[in-house]
Amino acid sequence: MFESAEVGHVIDKKTFRKEEDALRAELLLAQNALRELGKFPVVLLISGVDGAGKGETISTLYEWMDPRYLSTLAFAEPSDEERERPFMWRYWRALPPKGRIGIFSGSWYSIPIAQRIAREMTRGGLDNRLDQINHFESMLVNEGALVLKFWFHLSKDGQKVRLKKLEKDPRTAWRVTKLSWERTKTYDDLQDVAGHVLRVTNTAWAPWTIVDGTDDNYRNLRVGKALLEALKQRLASGAPKTVAVAPPIAPRIDDRNVISALDLSQALSDKTYERELAKWQGRLLELSRDKRFAKHSLVLAFEGMDAAGKGGAIRRITAALDPRQYQIIPIAAPTDEERAQPYLWRFWRHMPRQGRATIFDRSWYGRVLVERIEGFCAEADWLRAYAEINDFEHELVEAGAVVLKFWLQIDAEEQLRRFKEREQIEHKRFKITAEDWRNRDKWDAYQTAAVDMIDRTSTGKAPWIVVEANDKNFARVKILRALCERLEAVLKAD
Amino acid sequence: MFESAEVGHVIDKKTFRKEEDALRAELLLAQNALRELGKFPVVLLISGVDGAGKGETISTLYEWMDPRYLSTLAFAEPSDEERERPFMWRYWRALPPKGRIGIFSGSWYSIPIAQRIAREMTRGGLDNRLDQINHFESMLVNEGALVLKFWFHLSKDGQKVRLKKLEKDPRTAWRVTKLSWERTKTYDDLQDVAGHVLRVTNTAWAPWTIVDGTDDNYRNLRVGKALLEALKQRLASGAPKTVAVAPPIAPRIDDRNVISALDLSQALSDKTYERELAKWQGRLLELSRDKRFAKHSLVLAFEGMDAAGKGGAIRRITAALDPRQYQIIPIAAPTDEERAQPYLWRFWRHMPRQGRATIFDRSWYGRVLVERIEGFCAEADWLRAYAEINDFEHELVEAGAVVLKFWLQIDAEEQLRRFKEREQIEHKRFKITAEDWRNRDKWDAYQTAAVDMIDRTSTGKAPWIVVEANDKNFARVKILRALCERLEAVLKAD
Repeated sequence: MFESAEVGHVIDKKTFRKEEDALRAELLLAQNALRELGKFPVVLLISGVDGAGKGETISTLYEWMDPRYLSTLAFAEPSDEERERPFMWRYWRALPPKGRIGIFSGSWYSIPIAQRIAREMTRGGLDNRLDQINHFESMLVNEGALVLKFWFHLSKDGQKVRLKKLEKDPRTAWRVTKLSWERTKTYDDLQDVAGHVLRVTNTAWAPWTIVDGTDDNYRNLRVGKALLEALKQRLASGAPKTVAVAPPIAPRIDDRNVISALDLSQALSDKTYERELAKWQGRLLELSRDKRFAKHSLVLAFEGMDAAGKGGAIRRITAALDPRQYQIIPIAAPTDEERAQPYLWRFWRHMPRQGRATIFDRSWYGRVLVERIEGFCAEADWLRAYAEINDFEHELVEAGAVVLKFWLQIDAEEQLRRFKEREQIEHKRFKITAEDWRNRDKWDAYQTAAVDMIDRTSTGKAPWIVVEANDKNFARVKILRALCERLEAVLKAD
Repeated sequence: MFESAEVGHVIDKKTFRKEEDALRAELLLAQNALRELGKFPVVLLISGVDGAGKGETISTLYEWMDPRYLSTLAFAEPSDEERERPFMWRYWRALPPKGRIGIFSGSWYSIPIAQRIAREMTRGGLDNRLDQINHFESMLVNEGALVLKFWFHLSKDGQKVRLKKLEKDPRTAWRVTKLSWERTKTYDDLQDVAGHVLRVTNTAWAPWTIVDGTDDNYRNLRVGKALLEALKQRLASGAPKTVAVAPPIAPRIDDRNVISALDLSQALSDKTYERELAKWQGRLLELSRDKRFAKHSLVLAFEGMDAAGKGGAIRRITAALDPRQYQIIPIAAPTDEERAQPYLWRFWRHMPRQGRATIFDRSWYGRVLVERIEGFCAEADWLRAYAEINDFEHELVEAGAVVLKFWLQIDAEEQLRRFKEREQIEHKRFKITAEDWRNRDKWDAYQTAAVDMIDRTSTGKAPWIVVEANDKNFARVKILRALCERLEAVLKAD
């Protein structure tokens, strides 16, 4: 979930100045159009970790737009007035009217997150609250509001660096309080709780955008551009009042992402590979025979560009498993029977019993990859699929499944080399088709879709493992190792 | 919630035979069209109390339609296969493909309800499960399925009568097991739990229809006609795939309902009235000064036809309260400021603090009454309002509010008499406007809307009190008494 916000986004001053001028002009125009139309309000949530620049970004939005039609609500401890009314009352009070932008610094999310970290709220209690929040936001969207939610993220070390930097600068030192430092101690808890909260409330109608808070220029531009795009789309659509419209995925403003940040040159010598392979396969063999595994199951999904090495990696896993224990399900076009059912049906039917494993060679992520790119389903369908997939995997995990998803990344040159190689080798020739070449033309679209997918569906309980796969040795060992470590952690936690 | 199913619906044999012939022919046609179109499945849930005729109605549907394209799934204890997979797996397996009707006898609701009654599940656990079910049904509807949910209800005595009747008839005696009789002991628990479950899962996209199970003819016709109407609407609409379409409100098949079943001739002599009034006002005075009330608040909503006596009834309540303690909020057309906000905003703003009361003279129910009838909002808006209102009131109750809703019912003659009387009396003349006369023309539409409203929003925690109001004395005492008894029960439960 937070992976994309830790890849080191930086926008230099010159680029920023240039972009800022254009953005500012457009934002003012859009804000004015919003006001004149007077048909819907914008609810903008700025949340995140301490020191990630929430206050600075809000100030920048005030600089960029007409402050007379902005309002900012900061929610600290509830007042007496508020405490004696239902939880949501204070937020209802603060809603912006149609035609205006209301910025919520801290919001209906702050108290539940803080209470859960302090263990003043049970997990079930938190989930009930989140359910209520989802209903509330759904109502807002049905009533016409454009709801944009930003979560400003910092890595654990990044947070300390930023707090120190803020403290040094007399203009920002006041932002850092004793409490800010105290809260760094619960960083891991916050990540845990926030990860859960963001997953559950990452709905199609009001999705989260995770923003790297480290660099001021990057952070401000990212929020500004996301707001502008959403406003423009909504103003252009004429805002059909009775149908919840999902905002567009926030535009990316640089080329840094979880995929581009990979070091694809990583490799293992054959000798190291043989040794490591034997080690991790042995470990997997033990784990899959562990008595505690009888109360769990294993669900693995492999995705990646053509020729990324999914099949080979899967074979290195199954080599360590009892054949009666696993199934490999290759996912191609759905059958007639599958087409007559809801999208996830064809995957549900293959869910393993306890003590068993199902390995998907391509998976339910087809909806947000190939189906999105080829237009096989409507935009609304793949936009809602992120939340449906998260729900689906959550159900699996709740029932004891260990769920891991692997994205195998190669670069375009390596793919070309492998395609050509396949064409040379008789028994591999069937593996390369005209469609593979066509998909190759859509390389960039696939990369974008993969990044969006990882951002929206990599959760604490069912994470994506992004694998540098230019070198097959390296990839296979990384996969086996990640699988063993996960499985071990789950069995130990029993 | 169950009120409408206890007003004694009976369809005589002759009427039934006549209706049945027409219905059967139409159902077959619709089923055939569904199959030929092959674009969406129908998921039909038949749930309810023991002995309410679930099995009989399913048999009747099989008689009426082509059984080759129907499937019925009865879910008893999960098998080993099922127990070792996530909770929803068995239901996914059983989904009907596009073009078919799948009847679920017992469903994803059965186990959570049974577990909660047996206290094998916490309240929070149940709510999490219901949340999951709502997501699941939302997914089904988004994928194109038509989801129809029926709950067969019997009153406590009605259940015993029916079980005995079934036992006597050798053709049906097998349906009554020892377990059926045992479960009658937990009737009240079932009503409690089911009431909660039905409220939480009564979504705009997959609402419940509560059916009186007492009379076979009535029950079968009601389900058959509801299925037919929903099928026809959906087949005609061309089923826009990516937008959740709410099914129509199931058509009523007789004139019995919570309003028509009232005995409006009930009256109190002035002498009795004075005595009772003094008694209940005194009681209210005590209760509102009770120390325990300081942790609660009071939210009352008054609805009813024009001249039904709402104002007078409210004054009899406020006479017993400290003026600093309450506010009366008359609801007319929204202000500009209110119009610029989500629908419920104008009511949220008036929510009382602890120890206080807010009395609404007309209320948030305007959306499903006048706005529905006059077309002031789209059908989708008032259809989703039922669930939003239930959520809203649930939040109030969770925060300690006592929420009661009064529907004051008079008949058309009494209204006419009062209108004329008002025109005669100088200081009351302002109370009667051209609009009142126009509304009177829509009498039947208002009655229908009121019945739908009570069916969908009368919950255990925030019930509707339907008041026979032809006699003002009777109405006022009934209202005061209901209020005192509720308040007392809540304070005692603290």
